[in-house]
Amino acid sequence: MDIIEEAIEAFSQLPGIGPKSAKRIVYSLLSSPQKGKKIEGAIERLSGEITFCKICGNVSDGEVCKICSDPSRENEICVVGRPLDVMSFEKTGVYRGKYHVLGGLIDPMSGIGPEDLKIRELKERVEKEGAKEVILALDSTVEGEATSAFIASFLKGSTKISRLASGMPVGSELEYTDELTLSRALTDRMRES
Amino acid sequence: MDIIEEAIEAFSQLPGIGPKSAKRIVYSLLSSPQKGKKIEGAIERLSGEITFCKICGNVSDGEVCKICSDPSRENEICVVGRPLDVMSFEKTGVYRGKYHVLGGLIDPMSGIGPEDLKIRELKERVEKEGAKEVILALDSTVEGEATSAFIASFLKGSTKISRLASGMPVGSELEYTDELTLSRALTDRMRES
Repeated sequence: MDIIEEAIEAFSQLPGIGPKSAKRIVYSLLSSPQKGKKIEGAIERLSGEITFCKICGNVSDGEVCKICSDPSRENEICVVGRPLDVMSFEKTGVYRGKYHVLGGLIDPMSGIGPEDLKIRELKERVEKEGAKEVILALDSTVEGEATSAFIASFLKGSTKISRLASGMPVGSELEYTDELTLSRALTDRMRES
Repeated sequence: MDIIEEAIEAFSQLPGIGPKSAKRIVYSLLSSPQKGKKIEGAIERLSGEITFCKICGNVSDGEVCKICSDPSRENEICVVGRPLDVMSFEKTGVYRGKYHVLGGLIDPMSGIGPEDLKIRELKERVEKEGAKEVILALDSTVEGEATSAFIASFLKGSTKISRLASGMPVGSELEYTDELTLSRALTDRMRES
């Protein structure tokens, strides 16, 4: 049954899917082929119709994405690592500016340096568009912090630069909050009055 | 970005994949289209080349599956609920007989009765093939137990009928074993000497 083993192997390549889940998925596709058809079609459209915006690097169905070509968007740039992160911010409905997708984070262990990311392009954009603020919205990890620090110094003087707040997740309990998060929440505490 | 939302929706239909995992999968396919191609091809081959064996009901790449057409297989029938279960037994390498896939379990809550499963076909096979043993290898759940009980009484007198042993999973600790499993392990205890 090489075809089934091959299909399991193909699904195991996806993020978050191990061999066991892949097996369940493949057998579920065998018993409901219409699900498979839907996925086939979706993948085809993804590869055929989705490209990357030449301005911000986000996924797009044209040369320039809907956000970059929207004149009502404010002239500030939220810098994120991956296209996925843009979607997360858009879902909040709070942010009304534009984005810049770096295409990753600085990670010397994996051989990713600043020149591998769209950092030079960010600087050019900031100057060209006269962005009034750059918001660094990168992961709260070693790589994210290093990338933020690098960009902050690289852009220094060209515009206002800010970072996402760090602290306790909304709805979390003190008891279950790790020490690093707690100490950051304490250091960055907000004045109430 | 309807295409992306549609793709996320399509992947969310798969077992064990929620909207968050689906989102990660879709964005990973956007950055590595060759993974998508592999999955597309796998799904195509699954739907085009895999069918169900007319004897045992397992997945097959021909009218009769490799196991049913293997003369070296012993003349006993292991009864399972789904094709997936056949793979699990084959992986053990211990079983050298044949299989019979019921296509589900008796589940009155979902409206699945004995007539919806391949139970009549099982009886016909047992008689036709003169199977020397039927091993009931169904889930250790209410539905599985009910189905086993039904089949055991339905086949009574036609051949030897056995069930998988219940008990403590190998490698498990008493402290973390639930009461039902423990009491079953005690009831079904094996004589050592």
